[in-house]
Amino acid sequence: MASLASGPVCPLPRGDHDRVQLGHGSGGKMSARLLREHFLPRFGNAHLDRLGDGAVVPVEGGEIVLSTDTFVVSPLEFPGGNIGHLAVHGTVNDLAMMGATPRYLSAGFVLEEGLPFDVMDRILDAMAAAATAAGVAVVTGDTKVVDRGKADGMFVNTTGVGILHDGFRPGPTGARPGDAVLVSGPLGRHGMAVMAVREGFSFESEILSDTANLAPLVDGLRTRVGAAVHVLRDATRGGVASALNEIAGAAGVGVELDDGVVPVPGPVQAACEMLGLDPLYVANEGVLVAFVEAGAAPRALEVLRGFPEGAGAAVVGRVVAEHEGMVVLRTGLGGTRVVDMLPGDQLPRIC
Amino acid sequence: MASLASGPVCPLPRGDHDRVQLGHGSGGKMSARLLREHFLPRFGNAHLDRLGDGAVVPVEGGEIVLSTDTFVVSPLEFPGGNIGHLAVHGTVNDLAMMGATPRYLSAGFVLEEGLPFDVMDRILDAMAAAATAAGVAVVTGDTKVVDRGKADGMFVNTTGVGILHDGFRPGPTGARPGDAVLVSGPLGRHGMAVMAVREGFSFESEILSDTANLAPLVDGLRTRVGAAVHVLRDATRGGVASALNEIAGAAGVGVELDDGVVPVPGPVQAACEMLGLDPLYVANEGVLVAFVEAGAAPRALEVLRGFPEGAGAAVVGRVVAEHEGMVVLRTGLGGTRVVDMLPGDQLPRIC
Repeated sequence: MASLASGPVCPLPRGDHDRVQLGHGSGGKMSARLLREHFLPRFGNAHLDRLGDGAVVPVEGGEIVLSTDTFVVSPLEFPGGNIGHLAVHGTVNDLAMMGATPRYLSAGFVLEEGLPFDVMDRILDAMAAAATAAGVAVVTGDTKVVDRGKADGMFVNTTGVGILHDGFRPGPTGARPGDAVLVSGPLGRHGMAVMAVREGFSFESEILSDTANLAPLVDGLRTRVGAAVHVLRDATRGGVASALNEIAGAAGVGVELDDGVVPVPGPVQAACEMLGLDPLYVANEGVLVAFVEAGAAPRALEVLRGFPEGAGAAVVGRVVAEHEGMVVLRTGLGGTRVVDMLPGDQLPRIC
Repeated sequence: MASLASGPVCPLPRGDHDRVQLGHGSGGKMSARLLREHFLPRFGNAHLDRLGDGAVVPVEGGEIVLSTDTFVVSPLEFPGGNIGHLAVHGTVNDLAMMGATPRYLSAGFVLEEGLPFDVMDRILDAMAAAATAAGVAVVTGDTKVVDRGKADGMFVNTTGVGILHDGFRPGPTGARPGDAVLVSGPLGRHGMAVMAVREGFSFESEILSDTANLAPLVDGLRTRVGAAVHVLRDATRGGVASALNEIAGAAGVGVELDDGVVPVPGPVQAACEMLGLDPLYVANEGVLVAFVEAGAAPRALEVLRGFPEGAGAAVVGRVVAEHEGMVVLRTGLGGTRVVDMLPGDQLPRIC
């Protein structure tokens, strides 16, 4: 076998010490320092501190839910939040929409060389605070660094594990004719908040992202409405319109929305009109759509309105047996228009 | 509430139809088509086909292992494999090193606008084949698209769930003085294979990446050597040197390597000498380090050598009570040199 006499190795990169450097992705001393100084103090818990190849976590037997999402929002920070809030809320909400109680998260970071540590630290602070508030632990993680110009500041993947509950399995195929369609709050805030800062628009009143943990709302629906909740979906990328189209397609039913009752905040409506956008297609990060048995709708509405994030909840339509797979909007004058799924992007890089 | 009369929306992007476009990340029809045409036919299974916000998977009660890794290797394809092989093997191996049997994977993709579909499809084919061979199912996924120049072709995160076994919990703190240190095969192939193609070097004989699923080797060690296996670690980023330093630090022990018995293929040794690199620090993607009770070392070696990936397994050193936290190499002439952890990068973007 060959000899292993040592050869020269790359010197420690010089330059800015308040930014991410390529060496931070090396798996060597700089990586260890990045973890020790920036990540562990924020997320530290018994699982993560072990720094193994993964985390051992307890689960009850039966079934768990696994959900993954990568966040690539541009810019990283926007009115009302940053990519760190999204990365926690997005995956926590996906678990909640499956009916599960979110329990554990993994976090995978792609950092661009040159990312200022102060930006990164604000994002990590937001993630840590959001995780704590949601009662989930970040139990394992990974950081990679790519050279300048090969990423856009930071991408974050979170993958979550949630615990299911007996008798509560909402899912897109559960929609049935007669179901009431509810939204938990006003539409379009996240998309328009990101759009405003990205394009340098200043609207009359600032629009804040609605990024929020929706698991408590789902918990309320589970315990107080139960199996009468047929479908839950968070209305993120593609907005409420895309979520409803997916559900209509999956369940083979039609959905009717009533114009005039869909809650859209004034500033969002004004900004959308200015930009030629339709709020039904604008991304939300703190709004869920619920399909509920008609008789249980008043109670579901009451449950949702009991939470700050659900204060603006409304019944916006119903499931019908007609026009299978289609979503239509009933306008004030008795006409209808089809709310189709968009082919491509209304607003790219929104989450 | 405001009216929702429809405004204009962006037209379907025109241009290359054999490449990823921004609209593929929209959550609209193009996203659905990308999934239907490229992802589902390869990974399709009952969990994934449901297209929910996540996947419901059965687990036995007790403890599971969760592990995450993001892959940013450049270039995406290299002699012996591509990022798809790494994305499956990397996470499967991390689970295996914790003593777990890999069971489920999530997959999160960041695609750069303009990525040719044929490249993407080769990578997805590799992922699917590697997952099938490893007996793991890709049960949930996510795709995002970023604008040209904001990523480097494709980044892939995989997060895995593994099932633990009673009485088998190898971990870095388990190293004890007297343990034999084994490696499962020759060092440095992955790093030098990537380096060669990236830098346009052509070595005398082509070096292929060693990317491989190590779970069967661990399964063999678990069933035939059992609790005498104290530590398992795959020697990826930072190579065997970094893995040993981490273990020595975690367990508060010293590690002694014997020069001349560490297996390094001739072409890797020659390439390293040419480039001034030390094979101990070069990344492997199919080599594990095992710390085993001295008395059980012959059996562990026999087990490893029973697998093609372990044919070159060797005992390369031992754990000592001296020089706590340090790794030293005993040279042929009776001298020693410290095998420290590198500060920064020897080879960036290797996995």
